[in-house]
Amino acid sequence: MPEHTAASRLRLSGLCFLLQILNILLFAVFVRYSPEGSAGPCPPQLNCSRRNEDSAFQQPPGFQGVHVQVLLSFGLLVVFLSRYRPGSAAISVLITAFAIQWAVLTQGVFHFFLNGKIYVGAQSMVSADFCTAAVLISTGAVLGRVSPVQMLLLALLEVTLCTLNEYILLSLMGVSDSGRSLTVHTFGAYFGLMVSRVLYQPHKDKRKREEQQDKGHQTDVFAVVGTIYLWIFWPSFTSTTTTVHHNDENWAVLNTYFSLVASTVSTFILSPVLYEESTPRMVQIQDATLAGMAMMGMAGEMLVTPFGALIAGFLVGLISLLGFRFFTPVLRSRLKIQDTCGVHNTHGLPGILGALLGTLLTLLATADTYGYRLELVFPLVAQGSRTVADQAIIQLSALPLTLLLAGLGGCLTGAVLKIKVLRCSPDAQYKENAVFREVAEEGSEPSASGKEELGISTLV
Amino acid sequence: MPEHTAASRLRLSGLCFLLQILNILLFAVFVRYSPEGSAGPCPPQLNCSRRNEDSAFQQPPGFQGVHVQVLLSFGLLVVFLSRYRPGSAAISVLITAFAIQWAVLTQGVFHFFLNGKIYVGAQSMVSADFCTAAVLISTGAVLGRVSPVQMLLLALLEVTLCTLNEYILLSLMGVSDSGRSLTVHTFGAYFGLMVSRVLYQPHKDKRKREEQQDKGHQTDVFAVVGTIYLWIFWPSFTSTTTTVHHNDENWAVLNTYFSLVASTVSTFILSPVLYEESTPRMVQIQDATLAGMAMMGMAGEMLVTPFGALIAGFLVGLISLLGFRFFTPVLRSRLKIQDTCGVHNTHGLPGILGALLGTLLTLLATADTYGYRLELVFPLVAQGSRTVADQAIIQLSALPLTLLLAGLGGCLTGAVLKIKVLRCSPDAQYKENAVFREVAEEGSEPSASGKEELGISTLV
Amino acid sequence: MPEHTAASRLRLSGLCFLLQILNILLFAVFVRYSPEGSAGPCPPQLNCSRRNEDSAFQQPPGFQGVHVQVLLSFGLLVVFLSRYRPGSAAISVLITAFAIQWAVLTQGVFHFFLNGKIYVGAQSMVSADFCTAAVLISTGAVLGRVSPVQMLLLALLEVTLCTLNEYILLSLMGVSDSGRSLTVHTFGAYFGLMVSRVLYQPHKDKRKREEQQDKGHQTDVFAVVGTIYLWIFWPSFTSTTTTVHHNDENWAVLNTYFSLVASTVSTFILSPVLYEESTPRMVQIQDATLAGMAMMGMAGEMLVTPFGALIAGFLVGLISLLGFRFFTPVLRSRLKIQDTCGVHNTHGLPGILGALLGTLLTLLATADTYGYRLELVFPLVAQGSRTVADQAIIQLSALPLTLLLAGLGGCLTGAVLKIKVLRCSPDAQYKENAVFREVAEEGSEPSASGKEELGISTLV
Repeated sequence: MPEHTAASRLRLSGLCFLLQILNILLFAVFVRYSPEGSAGPCPPQLNCSRRNEDSAFQQPPGFQGVHVQVLLSFGLLVVFLSRYRPGSAAISVLITAFAIQWAVLTQGVFHFFLNGKIYVGAQSMVSADFCTAAVLISTGAVLGRVSPVQMLLLALLEVTLCTLNEYILLSLMGVSDSGRSLTVHTFGAYFGLMVSRVLYQPHKDKRKREEQQDKGHQTDVFAVVGTIYLWIFWPSFTSTTTTVHHNDENWAVLNTYFSLVASTVSTFILSPVLYEESTPRMVQIQDATLAGMAMMGMAGEMLVTPFGALIAGFLVGLISLLGFRFFTPVLRSRLKIQDTCGVHNTHGLPGILGALLGTLLTLLATADTYGYRLELVFPLVAQGSRTVADQAIIQLSALPLTLLLAGLGGCLTGAVLKIKVLRCSPDAQYKENAVFREVAEEGSEPSASGKEELGISTLV
Repeated sequence: MPEHTAASRLRLSGLCFLLQILNILLFAVFVRYSPEGSAGPCPPQLNCSRRNEDSAFQQPPGFQGVHVQVLLSFGLLVVFLSRYRPGSAAISVLITAFAIQWAVLTQGVFHFFLNGKIYVGAQSMVSADFCTAAVLISTGAVLGRVSPVQMLLLALLEVTLCTLNEYILLSLMGVSDSGRSLTVHTFGAYFGLMVSRVLYQPHKDKRKREEQQDKGHQTDVFAVVGTIYLWIFWPSFTSTTTTVHHNDENWAVLNTYFSLVASTVSTFILSPVLYEESTPRMVQIQDATLAGMAMMGMAGEMLVTPFGALIAGFLVGLISLLGFRFFTPVLRSRLKIQDTCGVHNTHGLPGILGALLGTLLTLLATADTYGYRLELVFPLVAQGSRTVADQAIIQLSALPLTLLLAGLGGCLTGAVLKIKVLRCSPDAQYKENAVFREVAEEGSEPSASGKEELGISTLV
Repeated sequence: MPEHTAASRLRLSGLCFLLQILNILLFAVFVRYSPEGSAGPCPPQLNCSRRNEDSAFQQPPGFQGVHVQVLLSFGLLVVFLSRYRPGSAAISVLITAFAIQWAVLTQGVFHFFLNGKIYVGAQSMVSADFCTAAVLISTGAVLGRVSPVQMLLLALLEVTLCTLNEYILLSLMGVSDSGRSLTVHTFGAYFGLMVSRVLYQPHKDKRKREEQQDKGHQTDVFAVVGTIYLWIFWPSFTSTTTTVHHNDENWAVLNTYFSLVASTVSTFILSPVLYEESTPRMVQIQDATLAGMAMMGMAGEMLVTPFGALIAGFLVGLISLLGFRFFTPVLRSRLKIQDTCGVHNTHGLPGILGALLGTLLTLLATADTYGYRLELVFPLVAQGSRTVADQAIIQLSALPLTLLLAGLGGCLTGAVLKIKVLRCSPDAQYKENAVFREVAEEGSEPSASGKEELGISTLV
């Protein structure tokens, strides 16, 4: 790579160095381990009465499941759909490594600040993983059009705003969103779409679409991995955060399973009608799986009958497919929003639908159908300080608030990324981006290129 | 794919639609979540006294392990051995998605019916996964010779019959088969072999064998994934269903480990004698691993000394290899049974041997060697309502009963599938099947075909 | 493979047969399951007061995590870095299968011998897995230069010596090394390096290095799998063996996460300075991840502040990279030690640094900062029978002892392997080794070779 200057090569290195030193200093000054552990008495400021914040260690598989989720499913989503850039795997790992540290810090400021110190525990890591998931969803929208340095800045800003949104929704408003339909899926998707809109560059779009078309079948086989992992690990992911910790009748897990099963079948129903193939591609099955799961984020623990999950999954599977077929082209041509990995159909729209379903189910919630679960799902309602209708209004109002924050945050972040681009010459910027493309295109004779691209198959 | 008519393309779509609507309606009418959870008192009809049916949530890793098992190991087995059909991954997911719903319904009818409702919980999902595993084993025998529509019908019928067999064995006869040597491995293998016999088509067999030979080395590397997953996840799979829930001395896990270790080594011993290579192929190691684990299905929790598991695994590893070398060709030429993935050697024969070993061990069971475990493994013996000899006779008689049900069910299903074939022209039927082949053969120049086939390597 | 004689082909088969029969006989005579389980009273000889040896079943995910660790991460490390030998996967499985049985026996002699019987349980399997991990690390140093028969003998000897070292350190000296910085990482690395030194063959070295260079980019994509698995599963691996079983505030897990996060970022900082690329290769990220985790082996549960883990991980990431760049060539040219997979930089050096850090932290340990954890991490200090300074001296003296044992053991093993080589003609020996190479090079035209090599991508 002779034309790749040392300056642009070292820019990422330098930024990483600065951010890591900053993280170490902030950790040294502010972050300590929880002094007592979950067994100890809970300081009143930590608001333990509502949820036992440190109980994640009582569910180590769930805790592990979240990491599987963040690193595998989202990482995979980001990586394999951008199959022309094997190098993006390395950047995904960097983004994850930075975002986890930064999220521990920012979340600590909101949630765990006590006597001038941030006390971290297992729950901090789980919350940090959620923020990282939102960041990875957002990168799915802009992938292929931003440099690693821009990605790092995007992570820096989005983690902060995502934490703010989560704090407002979950702590201030008392919204029940245990599967993070709003705070992860909807926020991440619309944040990324707005950044994509601000960074819109028409000529790049065309080239990418061509590349995507002639590699369709490879994407199919890569998608198998993603789908299988989602099936296995996402339900545990959901269960990590449900309020029901007692291991008995974890409806959120079962509802998520039923939803994903139904959305998978609906892909097999609608895909042959919309496209010319008798069997759907694995990418479509994976997208349906993602949509069926994002749908159950808020509603998962509120559904009291399994057929509700079947119907919801069935419908969201159809809607997601229709979105890919009819809405994504409109987004691209009319609204000038490029959506590299289709996050609008797999995270954005299902997240909104999940929030609406959650609102409806909140309205229908009664002490009879929920039993002791009411205390866990809607603690304020159970304590009598809120009526069910109030709770439903609050759940509903959380949706536009999230969209607003994600939209404004995306605009702001996009603007900042544009400024940063100006700070180096556009040429150098392009070259840095091109390094990754070179990795993929290096062996441009057929067989060697086959090697490279299939290599992505390992990005499990 | 110009010759592929819209009618045959939409047939699968329509069938999926009908079945999914049927599932939703049946769920809406019959299925509810368990009202009380495992903490609540158990209604007498649910027969909780024998096994705590809802305790699966106390073992979330095991629950997750079952899904890993169903989707990865079996799905993988089915997928990668049929490496000429990447499209089969999508069909495997469809079969799994449908079979899980249908198994929840049929199992609910037998096990969880109470006041006109089927009450589901985590245990329902685990049982449904077992049925799905049996279906996937059966598809391993017929793979490449049936269309997706036929596969769906096979799943519909086999789930029903497998549930019936399980109900008769476990609930009515009180057979102890916690690792499902009989109800999953033996039933699935012989059901599939019988369907394969009924659907026998001589000219297809020849072609497939040629394809298999010149892709041997690729299968090797794909098999590595399967083997590693089996080693990691199957023992948890076994432990999910063992009757010993108290986490202390889970002999079934340890016996399974020792058995698979020994069967792996025995592959390294016999393979160089039978074949011309000094090291066995990974496919052979994987088959030995599967055999060593199927062997421990029934006997896993009955073996009271580790060296018994070592010897059993050692012998079944040898037998499985000998079966591949000498018995599979006989099956094919004399009995006209094509066995695409060799399920007879990896599931059928080891399942039978496991059942025989289990019978022998039942005869040897005494209160002294089992201690408090006798209550868990043989509750009726511990309660005094059965002698050890009676239990052994019942264990033994379950084997021919399972073979009979699997054989009759396979004949019936094969006949139904043949009728369905008649309902469309054989030509259209062949074309539908050919769609998948096209996916694999599309790039017929060396490099592109290399891409396609290696893509299967991602079907982790 | 016409030139491959039947004699050399059957030598491995015969050795496997002998060893397996030996294992079965030893198991039959000596090994029994624990009579009572963890609930029963503990015989005084088993030294249960210090650690609840059978508590691993209370952490099934961790138990599973160890297997994931051993089979995936180490197996992968060994396999994919030697990407010119797909056949090495089969040998890795054989080594694992044999080493687990042998480790159960040897560890049983030291730890579980009671009334002439070895009583095994879940803890035996976990300990056996640790020994297997050390063996796999060692094979990483000598890979490509030893035959399968030699590997088996290496496993036989190393398991014995590793168990001896572990017994001296953990049981006799009372060293606190829950993450096995010394007994697995340091011992395995230096044992393998010493064997590599004794087996040094100059002409082979040159050829291998050439092969390594022109396959660099493929290694990149294979490494993604390894890195992601390490991130997900290693922290559970560490937590399996920590002395803190109460699930509250498992600092070892959090410290390990923080350490690996920081070492990953440090790769992005230093790599562009040392090499000509703006983004580090995935292999480098994986090596940094391994180093960051090996560093936390001993110190993981002693660090009381998160920023300590950040700093330690940050520094060890830099040191590991510098070691690859500057120290590995010196090892090769001056000390005549070939290090196929760079285990010195990823296991050896970080293990030593981890032990030094652990010693320092032991000196700083006070009852105030540790609280009730002191009893768990340093039981002898908590009981008053040792001062903190004594404990620190013992921790420190364990390092040279481990290095001495590993060095002597490696010399001895290397000498034995050389003797074995003499027993067959060097020619036949070379041919046996060549069998694997043929597997990889069989399709030497570009496309077919692409197939073979990418197949390794499946070694997830």
